[in-house]
Amino acid sequence: MNELSNNIPSRIDRLRELMEHEGITMYMIPDSDPHDSENVGDYFKCREYISGFTGSNGTLIVMRDMAGLWTDGRYFIQAERELEGSGITLFKMGEPDTPTIREFIRSNIHDGDVFAVDGRLITAKAGREYSSIVSDNHAVIRADADLVSDIWTDRPLMSARSVIVIDDGLAGESVPDKIGRVRDKMRENRASAYVLSRLDDIMWLLNIRGRDIECTPVAMSYVYMTLDETCLFLQDAAVTPEAKAHFDRNDINVLPYESFPEYLKKRMPIDGDDENTENTAQFKVMADLKATNYSVYDIIKKYVVDITNPTEEMEAVRNEAQMKHIREVYIRDSAVLTRFLYYVKKAMSRGETPDEYSIAMKLDEMRSQIPGFMELSFPTISAYGANAAMMHYEATEDSHSRLEPEGMYLVDSGGQYLGGTTDVTRTIAVGPVTEEMKRDFTLVAVGMLRLADAVFLEGCTGRNLDILARGELWKRGVDYKCGTGHGVGYMLGVHTGPQGIRYRYAADRAETVLKTGMTVSDEPGVYIEGRYGIRTENILEIRDVCVNSDGHFMGFAHLTYVPIDRDLIDTRYMEPHDIELLNTYHAAVRSNILPLIEDENEREWLIRATEAV
Amino acid sequence: MNELSNNIPSRIDRLRELMEHEGITMYMIPDSDPHDSENVGDYFKCREYISGFTGSNGTLIVMRDMAGLWTDGRYFIQAERELEGSGITLFKMGEPDTPTIREFIRSNIHDGDVFAVDGRLITAKAGREYSSIVSDNHAVIRADADLVSDIWTDRPLMSARSVIVIDDGLAGESVPDKIGRVRDKMRENRASAYVLSRLDDIMWLLNIRGRDIECTPVAMSYVYMTLDETCLFLQDAAVTPEAKAHFDRNDINVLPYESFPEYLKKRMPIDGDDENTENTAQFKVMADLKATNYSVYDIIKKYVVDITNPTEEMEAVRNEAQMKHIREVYIRDSAVLTRFLYYVKKAMSRGETPDEYSIAMKLDEMRSQIPGFMELSFPTISAYGANAAMMHYEATEDSHSRLEPEGMYLVDSGGQYLGGTTDVTRTIAVGPVTEEMKRDFTLVAVGMLRLADAVFLEGCTGRNLDILARGELWKRGVDYKCGTGHGVGYMLGVHTGPQGIRYRYAADRAETVLKTGMTVSDEPGVYIEGRYGIRTENILEIRDVCVNSDGHFMGFAHLTYVPIDRDLIDTRYMEPHDIELLNTYHAAVRSNILPLIEDENEREWLIRATEAV
Repeated sequence: MNELSNNIPSRIDRLRELMEHEGITMYMIPDSDPHDSENVGDYFKCREYISGFTGSNGTLIVMRDMAGLWTDGRYFIQAERELEGSGITLFKMGEPDTPTIREFIRSNIHDGDVFAVDGRLITAKAGREYSSIVSDNHAVIRADADLVSDIWTDRPLMSARSVIVIDDGLAGESVPDKIGRVRDKMRENRASAYVLSRLDDIMWLLNIRGRDIECTPVAMSYVYMTLDETCLFLQDAAVTPEAKAHFDRNDINVLPYESFPEYLKKRMPIDGDDENTENTAQFKVMADLKATNYSVYDIIKKYVVDITNPTEEMEAVRNEAQMKHIREVYIRDSAVLTRFLYYVKKAMSRGETPDEYSIAMKLDEMRSQIPGFMELSFPTISAYGANAAMMHYEATEDSHSRLEPEGMYLVDSGGQYLGGTTDVTRTIAVGPVTEEMKRDFTLVAVGMLRLADAVFLEGCTGRNLDILARGELWKRGVDYKCGTGHGVGYMLGVHTGPQGIRYRYAADRAETVLKTGMTVSDEPGVYIEGRYGIRTENILEIRDVCVNSDGHFMGFAHLTYVPIDRDLIDTRYMEPHDIELLNTYHAAVRSNILPLIEDENEREWLIRATEAV
Repeated sequence: MNELSNNIPSRIDRLRELMEHEGITMYMIPDSDPHDSENVGDYFKCREYISGFTGSNGTLIVMRDMAGLWTDGRYFIQAERELEGSGITLFKMGEPDTPTIREFIRSNIHDGDVFAVDGRLITAKAGREYSSIVSDNHAVIRADADLVSDIWTDRPLMSARSVIVIDDGLAGESVPDKIGRVRDKMRENRASAYVLSRLDDIMWLLNIRGRDIECTPVAMSYVYMTLDETCLFLQDAAVTPEAKAHFDRNDINVLPYESFPEYLKKRMPIDGDDENTENTAQFKVMADLKATNYSVYDIIKKYVVDITNPTEEMEAVRNEAQMKHIREVYIRDSAVLTRFLYYVKKAMSRGETPDEYSIAMKLDEMRSQIPGFMELSFPTISAYGANAAMMHYEATEDSHSRLEPEGMYLVDSGGQYLGGTTDVTRTIAVGPVTEEMKRDFTLVAVGMLRLADAVFLEGCTGRNLDILARGELWKRGVDYKCGTGHGVGYMLGVHTGPQGIRYRYAADRAETVLKTGMTVSDEPGVYIEGRYGIRTENILEIRDVCVNSDGHFMGFAHLTYVPIDRDLIDTRYMEPHDIELLNTYHAAVRSNILPLIEDENEREWLIRATEAV
């Protein structure tokens, strides 16, 4: 039982008292913030505070006589440990006998019951589904209930750090130009207004960044736009004089973050008001119900047109100025990781057994020296041996392994820089390895290189290409239980959309057609529980190949240039073309990275590490 | 100007008189039948009769002062020729400046106008779209107007040939078992009734076949099913005593085809009828609006639940008994095509220059000798040189080319047999060929073999795999303007769904997850207008590979065993694994086909044609 969970039973008792007082039968505590962010600020860690579970994905449901926490396969072991003694039942999502949250609500909410949740913390899409399940069962949904604030007496304040202005050179496009493009989309959809809640989109649109969420340079904010005004809702403390000047220059009205709901209510037409009758019929608010919270939705629901945020795809397509910055940032970032790999190999060859945590700290420190460094883009995954089989393993000061002189070590890391967001994984031999390890490593490298080598016609999505990365593993009955690739933000979230590289078809999930200027990760892997984990991850940019009478052909270019460990390559598992791809890649690594490395030992090692196989 | 088109202007004049009499502004003549069949019986060739255009895809729209025919790229040249002198404007579908039919209606139907069509000849889905366009323009839609019957005085009768009963050994599943599975789907969807219009599905469900549409062994029919009765609507002349006994045995009520609409009306609850009030609220009719005609939809629309016909996917998944028959049929069919290829090669080597049409007749004749042969599964495509660049080229007695002793000859053909439907394409050298032809032929063969070699996890659709066939062509900036693969019926339509292998994403098109027991074509190609066409087509079955903790892996097995012309293979465009695939395939061709071939010269040739490269 950890320190935190000692307090858990009493917190849940207190929650039950409040529920009883309010007449609530079932209370749900999600893990999100009002902007459906992947990571959330400390202020929003309600589920963690009440349950003691610290994983990034988890939903708590509390009733009079039970409390349950739903999380996914990445966190089963951690959740079991953290929930011990809490009285909370773990629901392992995706296991055959586990009810989904929706199924659980359906079976446990009865006639006359009250289901409650803080409507700011669930999306409109989810809220509407819960609402319909609850009313099917003749019960009531309350979405205004923030019971946690009453229990969490030392709750931190919501982060309100000052915003950073991104100049046009770094953004590659001015704010008025971006706003103009969004207004074109509003006209296309005959929308009078646009409500934008997704923080990455707001940062992109207004050429700003924030520091309110760890690893994600965003500021807590909303945008309300019409065809002739743009209102930004930002916490007062976030608005520096420089930012104020930027907003004034770009004709953006800045209003307090907290005032957004009241402001929004006032902007909606008033029913039955004679003066507004004409307006009411015409008035339409564009919003993405996957990315708008249920409380905001409640205000606009009579007028809403549900459309995927056009800003999401605009943000995903990089302009040439951005690409220039990104390419430079990636080469610097790659050089640091290359030097780090040498550092680990060298330490091992000297008979040292460094620990996962301290070498992660070393890498983080090296990365922080790169010009333009802001912060890490996610906590570094530094995993030796069997730990690497856990996709989201995190070594901590208190809990980590030492590297032994055999097998493999995996490091997945990245930074936020002025000029780009990086994400890269390499797996290296730290001593003797088995034939099986070499085979799996080689097949993963082949998959990564073949996907990067693809040429495809306009109209393809990631689902067309995924098999290039997985194909050779699938032929041996092996799969990795995650997507092959995700979009990568530009000084924004490192895992972003809407594009992605996955294989599984889902009738209700829209896919995004790949476009020139998008960036995407390419990260196949092999994970053998209790034994080892392999992942090789490069970030790719999509570029034009040619346009002819057969169509518009696109392909990829590598952004990441870090050696792929030749000690783990077994050419028996490669076609001649695969070998050519590896050698061509290594030649590019050498020519891009060598000029950035001064140390003679490091240079010698890089030259050897990039020799043709 | 062909013979037919001489009469066209007078037919259109007569149509305009009738339109004026009925107050119709715009009249549409589609190319379908009441069952949305790919091919239609002669009775339904209204568009051909009025316009003179004989292609399989074309829609005619007639107004007072214009007449237009919409067809796709396969038929532009043919349509131009056939429409000459008719006064009908050709609308080339897919060209940038051509309005779609919907756009044309939207721009040309005005306030108070009347748009008319025979509602039996369009799907409910299309009809609802036309209806909404027409009402947007404050005009009226009439879907009861069959004006063609009044003009087409010598219109043939609707085909009503006797049905064939398929025994359980051939079907692999009894009628009651199939009906039981369909009723499970009805219960799942809380449906009281199921209206089935698609002829392939009806034939499958009731273990019968028909002869009312050329190349497609189907009978004109409808099915109306409830949870305890099954009604089949069939033309009286189609019901033989054997069929009657089969229907009686399986508890199927047979009613006249013509009585279907009236019967259906009677089965719908009566509004406001006290006795029926309870029923009305509960009553739901399951129907697939993509495959139900607009006139039928009009009867059921108040009660309809729009669901893809469950029978479509059930039909697509073959049971082991069917697969056994199919494998045998394919080997016999492959042996005949193999002998035919030798026949052509031999004729060319003797200095003969046979013509496309007569050798197609020869092949058709050879195929008709195979035990169980019913008819061709589509008209044989026999195309020399540049003719092969037209994907749907058809040599006729009056219009064909002679094979010259250079370049390539393409033959795409298949048969309907008791035990399976075949479809196979081979391209062969008939004299000296260029390096470019060999390169393209090799890349096509590589694509075909790589797709067939794929292993994939459950959850994949054809879109995951298409790049395996196209990938090497795409890397050279070359594409083929059609899908890579279609489903193949079992003694039913040769181009069927719902599965397919295509690459382009369409947000509004549902995809079908690939399942063990499905069959699919694998037919990449290269088509260079005015020069040459290459296609290599095998039919594949989907089979289980393994089930382990990573999931359920599937792969393909070839059903077609015909040599791939080694004279056209250039191994410089193949990886070692591609060469292995070709050699393994040829070894299987030899071992499967040689035992069926008696002639010593043919045997010798086959042995040479399947030698390892």
